[in-house]
Amino acid sequence: MTTPTKIIFDTDPGIDDAMALLFIEASPALDLVAVTTVFGNADIDTTTRNALYLKQRFGLKAPVFKGTDKPLTRPRNPSPTFVHGENGLGDVELTGLVAAQPETKPAHQAIIDLARENPGEITLVAVGPLTNLALALKADPEVARLLKNVVIMGGAFGVAGKPGNVTPVAEANIWNDPEAADQVFTAPWHVTTVSLDVTTQVIMSPAFMDALEASAGPAGAFLNAISKPYAAFYGGRDGIVGCCVHDAAAVAYVIDPSLFQTRAGAIRVVTEGIALGQTCQKVDGELFGPSAWDDQPVQAITVGVNAEGLLKLYAETMGA
Amino acid sequence: MTTPTKIIFDTDPGIDDAMALLFIEASPALDLVAVTTVFGNADIDTTTRNALYLKQRFGLKAPVFKGTDKPLTRPRNPSPTFVHGENGLGDVELTGLVAAQPETKPAHQAIIDLARENPGEITLVAVGPLTNLALALKADPEVARLLKNVVIMGGAFGVAGKPGNVTPVAEANIWNDPEAADQVFTAPWHVTTVSLDVTTQVIMSPAFMDALEASAGPAGAFLNAISKPYAAFYGGRDGIVGCCVHDAAAVAYVIDPSLFQTRAGAIRVVTEGIALGQTCQKVDGELFGPSAWDDQPVQAITVGVNAEGLLKLYAETMGA
Repeated sequence: MTTPTKIIFDTDPGIDDAMALLFIEASPALDLVAVTTVFGNADIDTTTRNALYLKQRFGLKAPVFKGTDKPLTRPRNPSPTFVHGENGLGDVELTGLVAAQPETKPAHQAIIDLARENPGEITLVAVGPLTNLALALKADPEVARLLKNVVIMGGAFGVAGKPGNVTPVAEANIWNDPEAADQVFTAPWHVTTVSLDVTTQVIMSPAFMDALEASAGPAGAFLNAISKPYAAFYGGRDGIVGCCVHDAAAVAYVIDPSLFQTRAGAIRVVTEGIALGQTCQKVDGELFGPSAWDDQPVQAITVGVNAEGLLKLYAETMGA
Repeated sequence: MTTPTKIIFDTDPGIDDAMALLFIEASPALDLVAVTTVFGNADIDTTTRNALYLKQRFGLKAPVFKGTDKPLTRPRNPSPTFVHGENGLGDVELTGLVAAQPETKPAHQAIIDLARENPGEITLVAVGPLTNLALALKADPEVARLLKNVVIMGGAFGVAGKPGNVTPVAEANIWNDPEAADQVFTAPWHVTTVSLDVTTQVIMSPAFMDALEASAGPAGAFLNAISKPYAAFYGGRDGIVGCCVHDAAAVAYVIDPSLFQTRAGAIRVVTEGIALGQTCQKVDGELFGPSAWDDQPVQAITVGVNAEGLLKLYAETMGA
């Protein structure tokens, strides 16, 4: 068996963040070395508390580092309590919670230090606003060359007519800190972003979650419980029966990229006006006049997904 | 036979504008009542001269009204001579040109007056920057309720991964006057925009143009001649063998909308930043947080086209 890939998981738990975190922990292909938290689905105290709760309840060994409480330059958007609940985990009762504190080092410094200690070995999976990553780049630009890969859940590229989720063109993680996202996409590391274009194509149905509860022990029962308010949101808004698989799709990409079709090209983020937070890719090989995409690193977006294969990977990994 | 639809053709000839203009003239389903000119593919004196040349050479009865020479608020972008040539018609020699002048009334006033004289009867086909239309709306907002339809060639919505043509996200007609376009899309008339998403799927091959020359008389020979530098541009940039059918696709939509699949939703145009000139649609029925698309008129974009059917319609119309 190959050596597991070292993972830093930058997250704002968040219901689908929890699904992704337990997926990382369960996968023999991945070695979770740190959890870094960020505001987003809730405020930073809540997302950090939730990360610590998940660590404690499910016996995660990885340390939790608390990240930033606000975007680089803007005020923080209101928390989407109508999606993730007041407590960020669907308002499911967090039983048995005991006092726990994150590590003292801030999240962006933990990213830098771990990257320097493990050059070329770490894949950073970021499923919230990209502020911690931008802070790490600012504090130590070399971090961009020290990570193996950066895999993001974020963005919406209009592929196959899929829109944004907070505005017609913007996805929440990017919209929550457009400046940070633009810095992350234009830094010289290898970024793949798993966007709404594919994550909205992968749905965990109530039957899937029931089966997960039956096969995946305490984690399965917990995930089934927190999935219900999440599914209720999607059912009410989009007529979807079940939950879109956002953050766990980024994890699936790390484990098995063959589940996805990708498209190469520089990525920029709109930082003003009506399209604030929109991600736009200059498709590699297409020619245009001069533009803001010129001479920027070629990154990758996902444009297709094997939804059935992804769900199978998730269920098998959790149930193993 | 049904009464032909009255057409005002707002145009910046332009090679594909000429293809569209002669298509309107040849179609028994359409009755060209006026040509209004605008800057775009060349400066206003050149596009107006070209419209007058086409009127004279091909015996068009419709009057030509000269429009605006610049965008509403911005300086004019350089003319794309690398696409349409210095003379706007591929630098093909304009033989037999005699002095001719446009009507004295400005284009936007002609649109207003014709709309008032023929309430509910006129379809305005606009295939250049939308400045004349915005000026008409400003001078007489009621014009929006007096036209039957507005059909535009413009925009790029990323459907099926098709990009813009001047930047990765912006199409030239919209990019040449984003403020005007945003005003046009948000006015209370019925707008359908035939965008790059479909026009780049319809290609007139050299063989198609040769057949047109053989079947469509002097117009066919002229169109074949001006198509060659246009095809050379597409061949050099995009590897396409032939010409994309942009402006004539908007005319085809008026004649036979069943050739297209459309999608309903409010349309806004980005007027600042890296995505300047990008067209964005809020897909009707999708729910988001508050956005700039709220309470705007529902317009239509084209998301699919029967390319073979469109080419057949063009060839048959021109050859009849």
